[in-house]
Amino acid sequence: MHIRIINPNTTASMTAAIHQAAQHKQASAGTTVSASQPDAGPVSIESHFDEVVSAVGVAEEVLKGEREGGIDAYVVACFGDPGLLAARELTRAPVIGIAEAAFHLATLVSTRFSIVTTLGRTGIIAEHLLQQYGFSHHCRRIRAAEIPVLDLEHHPDAAFTRIVEECCRARDEDGIGAIVLGCGGMANLTQQISREVGLPVVEGVTAALKLAESLVSLGLYTSKHGDLAYPRPKAFTGKFSELSDLELPHRS
Amino acid sequence: MHIRIINPNTTASMTAAIHQAAQHKQASAGTTVSASQPDAGPVSIESHFDEVVSAVGVAEEVLKGEREGGIDAYVVACFGDPGLLAARELTRAPVIGIAEAAFHLATLVSTRFSIVTTLGRTGIIAEHLLQQYGFSHHCRRIRAAEIPVLDLEHHPDAAFTRIVEECCRARDEDGIGAIVLGCGGMANLTQQISREVGLPVVEGVTAALKLAESLVSLGLYTSKHGDLAYPRPKAFTGKFSELSDLELPHRS
Amino acid sequence: MHIRIINPNTTASMTAAIHQAAQHKQASAGTTVSASQPDAGPVSIESHFDEVVSAVGVAEEVLKGEREGGIDAYVVACFGDPGLLAARELTRAPVIGIAEAAFHLATLVSTRFSIVTTLGRTGIIAEHLLQQYGFSHHCRRIRAAEIPVLDLEHHPDAAFTRIVEECCRARDEDGIGAIVLGCGGMANLTQQISREVGLPVVEGVTAALKLAESLVSLGLYTSKHGDLAYPRPKAFTGKFSELSDLELPHRS
Amino acid sequence: MHIRIINPNTTASMTAAIHQAAQHKQASAGTTVSASQPDAGPVSIESHFDEVVSAVGVAEEVLKGEREGGIDAYVVACFGDPGLLAARELTRAPVIGIAEAAFHLATLVSTRFSIVTTLGRTGIIAEHLLQQYGFSHHCRRIRAAEIPVLDLEHHPDAAFTRIVEECCRARDEDGIGAIVLGCGGMANLTQQISREVGLPVVEGVTAALKLAESLVSLGLYTSKHGDLAYPRPKAFTGKFSELSDLELPHRS
Amino acid sequence: MHIRIINPNTTASMTAAIHQAAQHKQASAGTTVSASQPDAGPVSIESHFDEVVSAVGVAEEVLKGEREGGIDAYVVACFGDPGLLAARELTRAPVIGIAEAAFHLATLVSTRFSIVTTLGRTGIIAEHLLQQYGFSHHCRRIRAAEIPVLDLEHHPDAAFTRIVEECCRARDEDGIGAIVLGCGGMANLTQQISREVGLPVVEGVTAALKLAESLVSLGLYTSKHGDLAYPRPKAFTGKFSELSDLELPHRS
Amino acid sequence: MHIRIINPNTTASMTAAIHQAAQHKQASAGTTVSASQPDAGPVSIESHFDEVVSAVGVAEEVLKGEREGGIDAYVVACFGDPGLLAARELTRAPVIGIAEAAFHLATLVSTRFSIVTTLGRTGIIAEHLLQQYGFSHHCRRIRAAEIPVLDLEHHPDAAFTRIVEECCRARDEDGIGAIVLGCGGMANLTQQISREVGLPVVEGVTAALKLAESLVSLGLYTSKHGDLAYPRPKAFTGKFSELSDLELPHRS
Repeated sequence: MHIRIINPNTTASMTAAIHQAAQHKQASAGTTVSASQPDAGPVSIESHFDEVVSAVGVAEEVLKGEREGGIDAYVVACFGDPGLLAARELTRAPVIGIAEAAFHLATLVSTRFSIVTTLGRTGIIAEHLLQQYGFSHHCRRIRAAEIPVLDLEHHPDAAFTRIVEECCRARDEDGIGAIVLGCGGMANLTQQISREVGLPVVEGVTAALKLAESLVSLGLYTSKHGDLAYPRPKAFTGKFSELSDLELPHRS
Repeated sequence: MHIRIINPNTTASMTAAIHQAAQHKQASAGTTVSASQPDAGPVSIESHFDEVVSAVGVAEEVLKGEREGGIDAYVVACFGDPGLLAARELTRAPVIGIAEAAFHLATLVSTRFSIVTTLGRTGIIAEHLLQQYGFSHHCRRIRAAEIPVLDLEHHPDAAFTRIVEECCRARDEDGIGAIVLGCGGMANLTQQISREVGLPVVEGVTAALKLAESLVSLGLYTSKHGDLAYPRPKAFTGKFSELSDLELPHRS
Repeated sequence: MHIRIINPNTTASMTAAIHQAAQHKQASAGTTVSASQPDAGPVSIESHFDEVVSAVGVAEEVLKGEREGGIDAYVVACFGDPGLLAARELTRAPVIGIAEAAFHLATLVSTRFSIVTTLGRTGIIAEHLLQQYGFSHHCRRIRAAEIPVLDLEHHPDAAFTRIVEECCRARDEDGIGAIVLGCGGMANLTQQISREVGLPVVEGVTAALKLAESLVSLGLYTSKHGDLAYPRPKAFTGKFSELSDLELPHRS
Repeated sequence: MHIRIINPNTTASMTAAIHQAAQHKQASAGTTVSASQPDAGPVSIESHFDEVVSAVGVAEEVLKGEREGGIDAYVVACFGDPGLLAARELTRAPVIGIAEAAFHLATLVSTRFSIVTTLGRTGIIAEHLLQQYGFSHHCRRIRAAEIPVLDLEHHPDAAFTRIVEECCRARDEDGIGAIVLGCGGMANLTQQISREVGLPVVEGVTAALKLAESLVSLGLYTSKHGDLAYPRPKAFTGKFSELSDLELPHRS
Repeated sequence: MHIRIINPNTTASMTAAIHQAAQHKQASAGTTVSASQPDAGPVSIESHFDEVVSAVGVAEEVLKGEREGGIDAYVVACFGDPGLLAARELTRAPVIGIAEAAFHLATLVSTRFSIVTTLGRTGIIAEHLLQQYGFSHHCRRIRAAEIPVLDLEHHPDAAFTRIVEECCRARDEDGIGAIVLGCGGMANLTQQISREVGLPVVEGVTAALKLAESLVSLGLYTSKHGDLAYPRPKAFTGKFSELSDLELPHRS
Repeated sequence: MHIRIINPNTTASMTAAIHQAAQHKQASAGTTVSASQPDAGPVSIESHFDEVVSAVGVAEEVLKGEREGGIDAYVVACFGDPGLLAARELTRAPVIGIAEAAFHLATLVSTRFSIVTTLGRTGIIAEHLLQQYGFSHHCRRIRAAEIPVLDLEHHPDAAFTRIVEECCRARDEDGIGAIVLGCGGMANLTQQISREVGLPVVEGVTAALKLAESLVSLGLYTSKHGDLAYPRPKAFTGKFSELSDLELPHRS
């Protein structure tokens, strides 16, 4: 089984870190994990604007994967799940977002959870996803450590301290049983945080990897009946002209 | 007052038609309406994938408008409101989507409405928007005429007939008081449809134009406090490198 | 275009103030704004009881307007939108409530807002309206300055100070991007408050005026198909006998 | 115990019929039931407009009752629950609407119910009440027999036949366990309908009577803490001047 | 009329106390109240686990009652309403849970309420019931006094003090009009608490008793059409073999 | 890794079939799957009553598993998820219900799904679970093949035909992308049904198995902080006395 993790931002070191976290710790024997990142896009995703641009990169990485062939599932490794439904249209393989993955698993080990994310301004993105996915009532509170995404790389110790602080507040004040980490860049910190906080801490990259494996091994695939069917081929112009008249490998 | 209508697809004839419909019929004296379309993107928007690509075009058109200066508000003229929140981050000017505009106005003239759109597969996009905007309970049903978007240009008579048929079914079966037309390309047909059907028929382009005028004349602007603040400047790579380190005119 | 603002309470000085605020500042060239108030009813509206009585006044003012003729739209200028659906039944002209108007526009310039109103006891009225209109999730908090409505006239400086205080708390504590002012009597204070607070501040009278203009210029009218159709004429007794066997001008 | 049933319309024969149905069949030993109707208002309630006018009558009947003294609870006997919250503000005695009463009891004998009402145009009133009271998910469908309210008196046999027909459809098509009758004028038909249809059929007048008795015997009273506190006394003008400076008996 | 109160736990002294509270104070003349408790089960109910076991006891007590005959309605006297829908399947008599009863009546005397319960860990049970019954929006907050259920018997004074403290906080901080007591063991304290707190305080046992009386006197019965029909008879094994091939007295 | 599947009914042949389906087809290399069933309880689960009794069996099987030791996760293999939260209280191991598992995975491969279950009367159980888990909006319709659970064993061909028929109707009429099979007894039919229907068909037993494996391999465990903490030990009486003063292996 081959699962491709797409890091929607273009910071290669973050792609590598996510890849390593996923490959070394969580993938089942027999699962190959590869990681990619878009050729073009923002170095981190901290706004609706960043997200909109990165969503194109996600779609393009899925197309690239489909042309390569042999990829059984995709993971979209940014907590806003950018381009998730578009990516699903482009392939019969399962595509899992890390926010949805973390929400799903958190509800299986607790009745209520809180989210601890990087910047407060992205809270609204999580709020919209919770509503769309159906988990608004399961999330007590969205908390922000107020650290920029790349500080997870550049100032890891300070970032870790801030995140643990906020997780402990969530544990003590929110009436919850579990915490969802709201950033793909926190993947390698999960177990440490969980030990410090004493609660199940759910991180999306590894959660999505496991959900992807689950779907593949069950023979479940992205539905091509109805609104996730392959998009109608058509002309695209300008810098997107390569997207014209897509011939999707699995379409025929 | 200068309002810029952004047609998120790249079909120039559709941009022209929307411009004409807006300019000639609905703009107030004293309002200048201009129209633009992205340099790059799909020729029509009929899937999540098309939408994701067009959202970048919308954001870029807002950036272009901000550099030009003198634009008081923007309208995003595709029924899925692609890139709406991203566009709002990029400017202090109001930005209005045509789906939201149509929903808002429909609730002011009726207690319940139905949507008549082009392709059934885009119904889920409308459903997600209704939920995010708060109008799920006001919409009785989403109906599709099952005509591709560009057929509105290429086979206008057949398209018109199909749309009116579906509107009449909505009127007779859905327990509604108004109809929302679910495609920017139907702007020039609104009054004819309304006459045939005998109900208020709300079309988003002109609705959004009026809401934009309203906000501007009230001195209301896109909030820069909290989650719609200008995005943090940062590096973008590859074909999006022009988006790096944005200097937004109104930021300082 | 002629828009009639109905002040649902019977305090003439407040009607005049609302009229002036609307006429001088916000009406478009070509729009005539007139204002009226019921012959009978409470001098201010601060409870369900006051609201129920004022709703009759609103309906009677619409009937009066319909008999006069030439009125293109109505605004109901009390934050509880008293009698709104009844008023809509009585006319083909658009009728806009100031609470709904403010909610609609606030969602166009921010993702989340708070309401600052006069008395805490009327919060439940706003809460019910938010739910009916679909905006419960967009409103973070309803705050009360705890000042009686008529203090806005009698002690304007103290009232202004209290309102600004509460708006600043909303800005700093609620995670919002905009504020909705919860009383028609605050119309003339909006711009000052907005300056003090540094956020978009949405006031309903002017918002409703603009929405009314928008609907009229788009040719949109209150649906007469279904549940907002003209009421069946019938006998009314006692002090309401004048309402018997209504002959509504536009019915035929 | 003395319970006052207020018929919000002004048709005396309907008041008498409701009184009789309540008094003879359902009141407990020891409960006195009296009935009243407003001095002024519509002869039947079939629209938002009728409802708005009747709400004043309801409030005035409560005030009259409070001046009389000795009334332990009130029932508002119109399916739209007109003026319910206003009435609650005016007294410490429980006030029960017949729509809410029927909804509450229907959920105790079934998991899902349908409503069978008179005119389709009033369905929206029921829909708004279901939402406000929290029962939207318990009601599968609102059905209308499309008979004017007073036909229940003038053509009782035809009306009965139509209602039973619609109830049988609800039973066979809606996946429900109980039916709510959506009009106070159906009170005397309940048991016959229930026999014909073979389901629990819940009628609001008698349901409300029992809920009122329940609250009184439990010593429960309308809360005067918070938003149902007595309204602030103030001036009312014109035909409502008698409402000025209310001195409510229980206030002191 | 004979109403059977089932105490779902097996503490006989609590059964006796509930019986006494119900019989002496609240039952109408002509109503016989009896009380029972399961032969087997937990001595108090403070977790999902306790609740699951007690639900079997509730069902068995209903079966026992049906075999006895002459019972007109049942009350399930634990705040989690354990086994409520199962109990309803087993009889045509009304079955009322004390949580639902308290919620229903609280919404009739206030617009918003808070719950004061024993242990915080059972808050989730109340939360799930509020959602299922439709009252999520009517409940502002679930508060726990953090006292084990049997302390209500063993340390009644300390328990009373803690409960009153928490009720006062609810009154002062939650923006409510009424309080729901979240434990059957508080039945005999209700009036004292209400006096101390100065709000309507709703207790479920007596509330359920009155609702049960109401349904019986209205001739309303648990629907046997659809999902509350008698269960299909079948084999049960092991310690539940007595439940095999149930012959329910009212089935034929 | 050792996963224990608990069949909540007491039909050994069904336990064996479920075990076989899970073990042979879906378990990962390295995962041991065992299956058990309660000593006591109903032979099939087709009502709230059956479910309440089976929930005790589920809890007892978890206790038995905890005493055995070495079990890493549990699956509750009845579509109503009986006793799920109680089971979670009793162990630190993950416990997954097959209804929740199927719902979660269905939302990952489609935007909307329908459920095809055995008996219509159990639809309400699914409806309540959808609401509690947050998936009400993702499920378009609950359909019943109207076949008793044990017919899946006794008349497998007829049952298969009926289920496929109903699945095809769902595919053609409901606007969905996937189907959830609403009965544990359908586990071995999934792939055949999926082939006939041409949609992703999600079956809960295998879905739950995969989710359980996922949680275990991620080191995620049922939260013991808050409302899923181990239950307070206490006395149980009668046939449940063995549950008294539980000493849970992992508690210390």
